[in-house]
Amino acid sequence: MARSKIGIWFVGAKGGVASTATVGLIALKKGLITSAGLVSELPRFQDIGMAAWNDFTIGGHEIREVGSFDEAWRMHTESRAIDPALLTRCKGDLDKLDKHIKTGTLLNVGSTIECLAGPAARRHSESPREAIERVKADLKTFASEQQLAHVIVVNVASTEPAVALAPLPDRWAELKKQIDKPRRCPLPASSLYAIAALELGYSYINFTPSLGSAAPAIDELARERGTRHMGHDGKTGETLLKSVLAPMFAKRNLQVMSWVGHNIFGNMDAKVLDDPANKQAKVTSKDRLLGQILGYTPQTLVSIERIESMGDWKTAWDHVHFTGFLGTPMTFQFIWQGCDSLLAAPLVLDLIRFTERAWRAGETGLLKFLCSFFKSPLGVAEHDFGIQFQMLEAWAAGLK
Amino acid sequence: MARSKIGIWFVGAKGGVASTATVGLIALKKGLITSAGLVSELPRFQDIGMAAWNDFTIGGHEIREVGSFDEAWRMHTESRAIDPALLTRCKGDLDKLDKHIKTGTLLNVGSTIECLAGPAARRHSESPREAIERVKADLKTFASEQQLAHVIVVNVASTEPAVALAPLPDRWAELKKQIDKPRRCPLPASSLYAIAALELGYSYINFTPSLGSAAPAIDELARERGTRHMGHDGKTGETLLKSVLAPMFAKRNLQVMSWVGHNIFGNMDAKVLDDPANKQAKVTSKDRLLGQILGYTPQTLVSIERIESMGDWKTAWDHVHFTGFLGTPMTFQFIWQGCDSLLAAPLVLDLIRFTERAWRAGETGLLKFLCSFFKSPLGVAEHDFGIQFQMLEAWAAGLK
Amino acid sequence: MARSKIGIWFVGAKGGVASTATVGLIALKKGLITSAGLVSELPRFQDIGMAAWNDFTIGGHEIREVGSFDEAWRMHTESRAIDPALLTRCKGDLDKLDKHIKTGTLLNVGSTIECLAGPAARRHSESPREAIERVKADLKTFASEQQLAHVIVVNVASTEPAVALAPLPDRWAELKKQIDKPRRCPLPASSLYAIAALELGYSYINFTPSLGSAAPAIDELARERGTRHMGHDGKTGETLLKSVLAPMFAKRNLQVMSWVGHNIFGNMDAKVLDDPANKQAKVTSKDRLLGQILGYTPQTLVSIERIESMGDWKTAWDHVHFTGFLGTPMTFQFIWQGCDSLLAAPLVLDLIRFTERAWRAGETGLLKFLCSFFKSPLGVAEHDFGIQFQMLEAWAAGLK
Amino acid sequence: MARSKIGIWFVGAKGGVASTATVGLIALKKGLITSAGLVSELPRFQDIGMAAWNDFTIGGHEIREVGSFDEAWRMHTESRAIDPALLTRCKGDLDKLDKHIKTGTLLNVGSTIECLAGPAARRHSESPREAIERVKADLKTFASEQQLAHVIVVNVASTEPAVALAPLPDRWAELKKQIDKPRRCPLPASSLYAIAALELGYSYINFTPSLGSAAPAIDELARERGTRHMGHDGKTGETLLKSVLAPMFAKRNLQVMSWVGHNIFGNMDAKVLDDPANKQAKVTSKDRLLGQILGYTPQTLVSIERIESMGDWKTAWDHVHFTGFLGTPMTFQFIWQGCDSLLAAPLVLDLIRFTERAWRAGETGLLKFLCSFFKSPLGVAEHDFGIQFQMLEAWAAGLK
Repeated sequence: MARSKIGIWFVGAKGGVASTATVGLIALKKGLITSAGLVSELPRFQDIGMAAWNDFTIGGHEIREVGSFDEAWRMHTESRAIDPALLTRCKGDLDKLDKHIKTGTLLNVGSTIECLAGPAARRHSESPREAIERVKADLKTFASEQQLAHVIVVNVASTEPAVALAPLPDRWAELKKQIDKPRRCPLPASSLYAIAALELGYSYINFTPSLGSAAPAIDELARERGTRHMGHDGKTGETLLKSVLAPMFAKRNLQVMSWVGHNIFGNMDAKVLDDPANKQAKVTSKDRLLGQILGYTPQTLVSIERIESMGDWKTAWDHVHFTGFLGTPMTFQFIWQGCDSLLAAPLVLDLIRFTERAWRAGETGLLKFLCSFFKSPLGVAEHDFGIQFQMLEAWAAGLK
Repeated sequence: MARSKIGIWFVGAKGGVASTATVGLIALKKGLITSAGLVSELPRFQDIGMAAWNDFTIGGHEIREVGSFDEAWRMHTESRAIDPALLTRCKGDLDKLDKHIKTGTLLNVGSTIECLAGPAARRHSESPREAIERVKADLKTFASEQQLAHVIVVNVASTEPAVALAPLPDRWAELKKQIDKPRRCPLPASSLYAIAALELGYSYINFTPSLGSAAPAIDELARERGTRHMGHDGKTGETLLKSVLAPMFAKRNLQVMSWVGHNIFGNMDAKVLDDPANKQAKVTSKDRLLGQILGYTPQTLVSIERIESMGDWKTAWDHVHFTGFLGTPMTFQFIWQGCDSLLAAPLVLDLIRFTERAWRAGETGLLKFLCSFFKSPLGVAEHDFGIQFQMLEAWAAGLK
Repeated sequence: MARSKIGIWFVGAKGGVASTATVGLIALKKGLITSAGLVSELPRFQDIGMAAWNDFTIGGHEIREVGSFDEAWRMHTESRAIDPALLTRCKGDLDKLDKHIKTGTLLNVGSTIECLAGPAARRHSESPREAIERVKADLKTFASEQQLAHVIVVNVASTEPAVALAPLPDRWAELKKQIDKPRRCPLPASSLYAIAALELGYSYINFTPSLGSAAPAIDELARERGTRHMGHDGKTGETLLKSVLAPMFAKRNLQVMSWVGHNIFGNMDAKVLDDPANKQAKVTSKDRLLGQILGYTPQTLVSIERIESMGDWKTAWDHVHFTGFLGTPMTFQFIWQGCDSLLAAPLVLDLIRFTERAWRAGETGLLKFLCSFFKSPLGVAEHDFGIQFQMLEAWAAGLK
Repeated sequence: MARSKIGIWFVGAKGGVASTATVGLIALKKGLITSAGLVSELPRFQDIGMAAWNDFTIGGHEIREVGSFDEAWRMHTESRAIDPALLTRCKGDLDKLDKHIKTGTLLNVGSTIECLAGPAARRHSESPREAIERVKADLKTFASEQQLAHVIVVNVASTEPAVALAPLPDRWAELKKQIDKPRRCPLPASSLYAIAALELGYSYINFTPSLGSAAPAIDELARERGTRHMGHDGKTGETLLKSVLAPMFAKRNLQVMSWVGHNIFGNMDAKVLDDPANKQAKVTSKDRLLGQILGYTPQTLVSIERIESMGDWKTAWDHVHFTGFLGTPMTFQFIWQGCDSLLAAPLVLDLIRFTERAWRAGETGLLKFLCSFFKSPLGVAEHDFGIQFQMLEAWAAGLK
């Protein structure tokens, strides 16, 4: 068990995922919900000395000026996704949370995300280094006020436009210099938060397709500072199914000719992904695993479209056309109707809990054993969900 | 590589699965088809000294009096499932096969299967022991005429009515005595073929839900005689998907409330399963794995209905209702449109090839490493397809 | 406009459909909801002098001893089907309703429905004629206490076991005699309520597949008494779609080979339909229209299965296999995810409103113009929904 | 009955639709197929003096240099859509057809269609008027060689890029002048074929979304010349279903919030529609009917994507999200798996047969009674398929 309090710091603290994770943590502390959806609550992970839900406390950055409860309540009014009675019972704690949410940075988040920001966020005119230092100050205040032994920064903010990795220097020393020359620094906000966290020795988890800590130079920073990070892009729905189903086609030698996946949903994430620049990062992340699993590249199509009436309910239709014995084509289709934030939130809490345990175990660098949680796991080529999960089990077995 | 010829003996030699496997073997020998659908052709199994397709020759038992080519041709005319050009190119070899097909036994196959039988099968009035000896004589003739080093008997006949295992004696010595007292012997044809094969030291594979070699006493016979067997009920479609998808729900702690599966198809198998006695064996086999994988028992419903127009195309609609985080219900549905015989046939050929390799490796008793091929693998409690497949890979690795 | 108050008398007043219709009527009176789902609110029916929602007041019979609000609340807790805020705002009116609900009769309802009944209903040991007279007394009390100009009795109670029509006498005079000889009277409760209503000159609508007023002798009673009735079995979901889609296949000469429909749901209706005796009436009603529309009879399969987790959400998967040009088979599938009571309730209110208008117009006998609302419309052979709807439009046009 | 031979002239004579219609006509003449898919073969149209299939003879224009049989054969090899035995029996007649196919024009067809053309089509460098005259010469040769009483020109060529109607003059006299000044003439090939046909007094049917005869000036030409035309864009699959299902939502007052339709297929039409310019015409045509039927405009999304493995099999997934009673959202989804050319071809033959009958009846101008066959019927605002079909029935009733 954790001896002391651990901070959770959400980047995008009032978005759908953070709101839902926050409601979830409050509800878990109050004993209002079961363990459904929480991987870390599976029997096989119960004897590895995991922190209790009560050990965690929440803070975060947000660019919009809205109330935590109001945002959570939209999960009921717009999506009929959370029982309003549960939300009402968590209202008091949600309201208290608002004072721990600081104003986030808009550096390189792109115009679509900028449009969502409130006046406070827009007021900041800062260089990358100034943004990093401001974030660090917020984190340090949080840690000292709450008497925290450690902080885990989790990016659950809107998807930023894709940033090319190639032009970035591989070494931290080089990247650091770039940061100090603002005009030459293409790093988006997600990476600045990562750097702030890692420079303080805190852990960083990127649950989104944004760049975050994916640059090798930032990984070097993590290792230098003896801290840890992982990402990216939480594997919650359609892609989870791909990573479960594609291995079946591969192992049965059923040749996939084409795999089409259409996703529709209507929450704020959908609004941001309506911008082609932001969508690109997401689609790439959803599409790349098939080739690795199958060993060849079928024709694929992934679309994500904003349909407002769907709210947080993401519906995916996937159509798999494959060749069977004697060359006969066959078809497999699935329809997934899941609530996006409710699928993501428990995984975010799981990642925090596993990361906290890794911190206590003294693990540094990339936390590859968490790969089953991500669409594009950093440093891991394996995309078969079953095998990825065995990596988590093996890690847990090593802790017993 | 196999030094000498190996016999394949199909029980139900002109049924859809055997016909398709036979066409497939001919087409493989002629180089007319690719490896699609064949597990044993995956790169990972290429360096374990597997027999070549040319090493195999086919014979079998059948209760109907029909031509091999005509039955295969129905896969085109009734189901549009096999390219007629391919069938035409295999006609000569199919015609030659007819003379190696002997008349099967109708002992305890139930009235629905009896109705399918031709006059020759109906003429036999025999005791269980007489049936076994007749089968053995047919197998020995086949082996000597074809100069075979070994024979693998594969049951792909229609599903027999369920037989209770409990009343059967556990020891072979006891069961053997029962066989000699015909009025007390409840063993169905599938078990008599198994006994005939095993008494001759041949291998036996049960691809159907019929009893076959599932009785402990028959397993004892196999071990006594130093031979091998495995079963039962080939995992080809909807159940394969359950064994792939249920582990995902389990590992993500998504609580399955109900899992409904409706199957429709129209081939001869469907006709036999239209008899509730025969259907029971099948439904039980399709339904039992969920509890093992999930660790709890959700409400389940499995239906198999005969819809004549579907022919060999089995369409399954599965509806999974599960509870996610904060107690919110979500839904996953899939539609599988596969051609039943074309899914089964390559697995039958794979099982034969792996069994032949196990024979050369001197393995005896239950071939548990083949569990990924079966809905109800004998002697194996594991139903997670990914883990089952790793057992096959581990066996192959041990042969290198 | 109606000059005076009209009574709605629900048989099965606290079941899902009646509860939802009651909540709906309250919400309409309070202006809390839009017209979604209400046919009578379409622009084309606005100038025919329809009664206002405020003109109606509710009473009814029920065999269970439960509170109206509690039953309505289950639509939220068990099915997440009605916004709890809406239910809460209707609570006061629902509570007041309880005193207008009388104890129903259990005569010939079958054992499954009997099991649902409370002690009060079980206490009644009455002959058919006594039951009719008790119902009439309840209706008269309701009419006089509420000062009603007319009462419309609507059967929304659980489906009774099927009763054969053939043995019933065709003339009311004969049937009346049978009723007075209880041992010879096979009439179920639904018919006794119908007779009670019609003998009083009230209108009767049967929204269920139960016998109700379907017997020719009861129709004669209605005509003799100058009143009106219609039924039966509300067309809310899967069958509605059949009556919309089958005409397309017919008009395009696409030959339907098979039409398979699987329905799953989990409300109290599902519990009653779990009894094969009760289910038969329903399945027959869902299945018969295809032949009439297509002009030939394809293979059909209709299943209704109780899956508890689904609550009031009825999900139907329909698979239509049809032959196109040059004999090529093609497939159409649909998945309908509708909330059963919410689909039924507005139609019940529409039927009441249209029936009230017909009463004022002096129409008697079968109200055939309502056929688009029913799976098995009495006295109407037409099942094409589009043409049925034109009959409603023509009736309305005649009133202008 | 027709006294004399009638010519069918296909623009795009070796494309999938024309090839399939041609095979169909040959097979009908030979009595090889049933009437499945043919509207004109419905009993209700049998006593209106329709021409026999034997009365028709085929010719056409094509820009590719391929053999008629080879193109038809692809329906088997690439799509498994037509029984090869049937194709083989039609081979002799298909081969004879090749000499009646002339080289088409590439004027304003756009670069994607130009890329498909063979050298002969590319060689023509002609003005619009020259193209019209060349087409007329081909038609006259066909008519005189075959001794035809009338010719019906049917456009089944690839979809051209959209052309704005607004800038075109409304009067034929003005448009005619434009045609003679080639630089100012935006008319695409489909319109030039229409003008050629109409100037000769022949009938013209546009089965595609291309401009064809949609310009008012061309309609004036048809009326001036006493001939007839209709279009456009055959209603074969997903849009047919929309025109059948949307009226149900409208009549039941179920408020459609969003209607999403994703289409995948892989034939040559798909290749052409892969060009956004060409796709636009199609998507617009598929999308516009919902607003007319519903009376309001829900959010809609229509995608058509080329997935090569699908060949001629067009699969559409439609997701309809609608509001029911008390504001509760519900969902309807369908999956349509139809063979594009096999759905279109019989309608093309039906249109020809009905148009021939209208010619004999002396009808001129727009043949509005054919509206049920088109996604965007010229001159008809009604999109409810049931009501459209009644217009066809009323026309037929008038001929009796």
